[in-house]
Amino acid sequence: MTSPDSQPQIIFSKIGREIQPPVIVDLMARALANPELLSLAAGFTDNAVLPRELVARFAFELTQEGQPDEPLQYGQNQGRTRLRELSCEVIAGHPGEQASAFDSAKMFMTNGSQQALYLAVQALCDFGDIVLVEEPSYFVCLEMLKGLGIRAIGIPCDDAGAIQPEAMEALLRDLDARGERDRVKALYLVSYFCNPSSRSLESDEKRAVAKVLLDGDWQIPVMEDAAYRELYFDTPHAAPSIISMPEFDAFPKLYLGTYTKPFATGLKVGYGYCTHPQWLVKILCIKGHQDFGSAHFNQAIIERVLEEGLYAGHLASIRQHYAHKANVLEAELIAGGLPELGWRWETPKGGLIIWVRAPLETDLRMASDFCQRCIEQGVLYVPGDLCFSSGKPWHCARLASGALPEDRLREAAQRFVAVAKERN
Amino acid sequence: MTSPDSQPQIIFSKIGREIQPPVIVDLMARALANPELLSLAAGFTDNAVLPRELVARFAFELTQEGQPDEPLQYGQNQGRTRLRELSCEVIAGHPGEQASAFDSAKMFMTNGSQQALYLAVQALCDFGDIVLVEEPSYFVCLEMLKGLGIRAIGIPCDDAGAIQPEAMEALLRDLDARGERDRVKALYLVSYFCNPSSRSLESDEKRAVAKVLLDGDWQIPVMEDAAYRELYFDTPHAAPSIISMPEFDAFPKLYLGTYTKPFATGLKVGYGYCTHPQWLVKILCIKGHQDFGSAHFNQAIIERVLEEGLYAGHLASIRQHYAHKANVLEAELIAGGLPELGWRWETPKGGLIIWVRAPLETDLRMASDFCQRCIEQGVLYVPGDLCFSSGKPWHCARLASGALPEDRLREAAQRFVAVAKERN
Repeated sequence: MTSPDSQPQIIFSKIGREIQPPVIVDLMARALANPELLSLAAGFTDNAVLPRELVARFAFELTQEGQPDEPLQYGQNQGRTRLRELSCEVIAGHPGEQASAFDSAKMFMTNGSQQALYLAVQALCDFGDIVLVEEPSYFVCLEMLKGLGIRAIGIPCDDAGAIQPEAMEALLRDLDARGERDRVKALYLVSYFCNPSSRSLESDEKRAVAKVLLDGDWQIPVMEDAAYRELYFDTPHAAPSIISMPEFDAFPKLYLGTYTKPFATGLKVGYGYCTHPQWLVKILCIKGHQDFGSAHFNQAIIERVLEEGLYAGHLASIRQHYAHKANVLEAELIAGGLPELGWRWETPKGGLIIWVRAPLETDLRMASDFCQRCIEQGVLYVPGDLCFSSGKPWHCARLASGALPEDRLREAAQRFVAVAKERN
Repeated sequence: MTSPDSQPQIIFSKIGREIQPPVIVDLMARALANPELLSLAAGFTDNAVLPRELVARFAFELTQEGQPDEPLQYGQNQGRTRLRELSCEVIAGHPGEQASAFDSAKMFMTNGSQQALYLAVQALCDFGDIVLVEEPSYFVCLEMLKGLGIRAIGIPCDDAGAIQPEAMEALLRDLDARGERDRVKALYLVSYFCNPSSRSLESDEKRAVAKVLLDGDWQIPVMEDAAYRELYFDTPHAAPSIISMPEFDAFPKLYLGTYTKPFATGLKVGYGYCTHPQWLVKILCIKGHQDFGSAHFNQAIIERVLEEGLYAGHLASIRQHYAHKANVLEAELIAGGLPELGWRWETPKGGLIIWVRAPLETDLRMASDFCQRCIEQGVLYVPGDLCFSSGKPWHCARLASGALPEDRLREAAQRFVAVAKERN
């Protein structure tokens, strides 16, 4: 065999030359590799509330002979028909949705909603194109865009993450003036219990966004990531999706949902719902080339859970659980005295994350003393700069409450607070 | 809602603008949608030999609490460590392989081997780049390359599909003379029971290929697709993989394998084995962006089957079954009198396909009278022109024997033969 030193040189593609290892992969690897390192970073769900019985029951049923649309055989590239219908019902069942707006022909199943986003972006963007994002936004999306040579440009948001319509208008005018209009290919919103801010977009805010875009004649595709929508704690977030809001009628729309976070991450079933027929065709073509269909068996398991009306009960039980976990994390941050050190956050109303903001001058980046000290002390978090398209500011952190058992969650929070005190 | 007529116009990416619907998606959809249409086209496996008991048994086990590397939780982007080790053993267990050549750090798990191929190609090729392929080659790969704007160029092969080294040398010289050297990014070989030709590459043939490349100083990445390798009928194909052949030491290598065809297509677990560390890093980065890991539960099921030593027994039973199915199809083609009409084929020694060649002047393309007449008569095949980079010749067809139950396979073959007679 050739020794590593004498590896022949490969001329990689532009993507291949410029791509950087995704931070999420590193975070997941660290969390999985070292149980002593308590991870407030990886957005895992809690092993304690995985739907073991439901998966066992339907996995058994679906291996029996004579199932409709044999689940152990290949399925359609677009995904199982009945699952697509039922997934439309899941979206339509949220507050304010127009049930009649949903059509299973516009739904497609993917390997997690990440793949749906990737496919949609591949269909839209060339190197150097622009996707508008919130500040902060989902860091895995930002990394993915960078990996495809796409520029993420942040829409001005206030400290709490609310979009500033006037500043957004100014940004768009500026892009226009710089001759970039045709490069702006999409807007990406994480509207429900945003990863990382845990903030949800209000209806008024979405309406304002639509108005700014329409006023400037920017009928660009809007991608709404609703991965955490089902994970509200007490009440669902009131704002309907962009699919059901008449203000977004004039836009090509993609809604991203998933059964990973709210059901089982290990089954990796997500979906996209695309209102623009031509865009959908492109997405499905690319999916046909990438894998010609996601794991059929897993889709069938989710389909059966939904068909039997068992999804709502599962969600009800995990909502309580995750509300409690968020509570535990927050209580520990308060008890440790973070507020007195000038740290701020909004109490989350759903999701798996608390987004904390240290005093402005604090540097929490991966290479910072703070972060390295945390790793020494055995606790990991996602540095907030990764969630901003510009890589700034540096004083925020994403703390995930979902994965760790309660006692270790407390311990992780204590370690984090201890570093904050030490560095004060 | 906006009516379909007034959909806003989207400026798609170059990929988005040029992509065409993959034929495989259409074939799968037709086969799944209409049970009266007997499909000799879709390369499905046989529902009768799906590993129902094995999947049921381990799916149950793996939903119990306290499993190592919780299978219902996210896993590593690269895939489960133990499954990667066991998959190395699967390859190393084939005749002629150097067991010491395999290292699980070079293995990565994907959504079918198609995704592994897609990732590898994304890392290597820009628009306009070239991948060398056999004639015929796997049509899904050819479509995928086209969808990414990559030029597939066929290596001259004889009528039976054997690579012609001297003609290959001339082709490479010609590419060099045309200033295309740096655009040639990889060679793609389907070395075991090739889809579509059912032919396997002999060791001598592979050695000759390596020599031609080395003599011309073409140390390009070589991708060897072994998706059907486990599906031999009586004896494994004797040639070792390029991983174990010293003649390929100087090349970056990717070996593609899968558990879809030989185990369960519905679980969609495939893999790639990449000898070039930098190429592997790029592949994993792109996978991190596409989906940050394939379905973990499915990987765990396969891992348990392998760990318990149950894979060999499963393979032994399906080999007999598929040998019989190929026999049934071939017997029907002979009984119907196809040879007397001038049709030729090699009796397959493995795989799920018979590759038939009609008299040279026969047009079997999708739009041909022959193909349309077959659809009227309720039988579907893959027109062979799809398997050639140039779209020629037109007189071949891929007939899959794997999916249909025996009686329907006979019926499908009879329908096909009837059209051949009618058109003679």
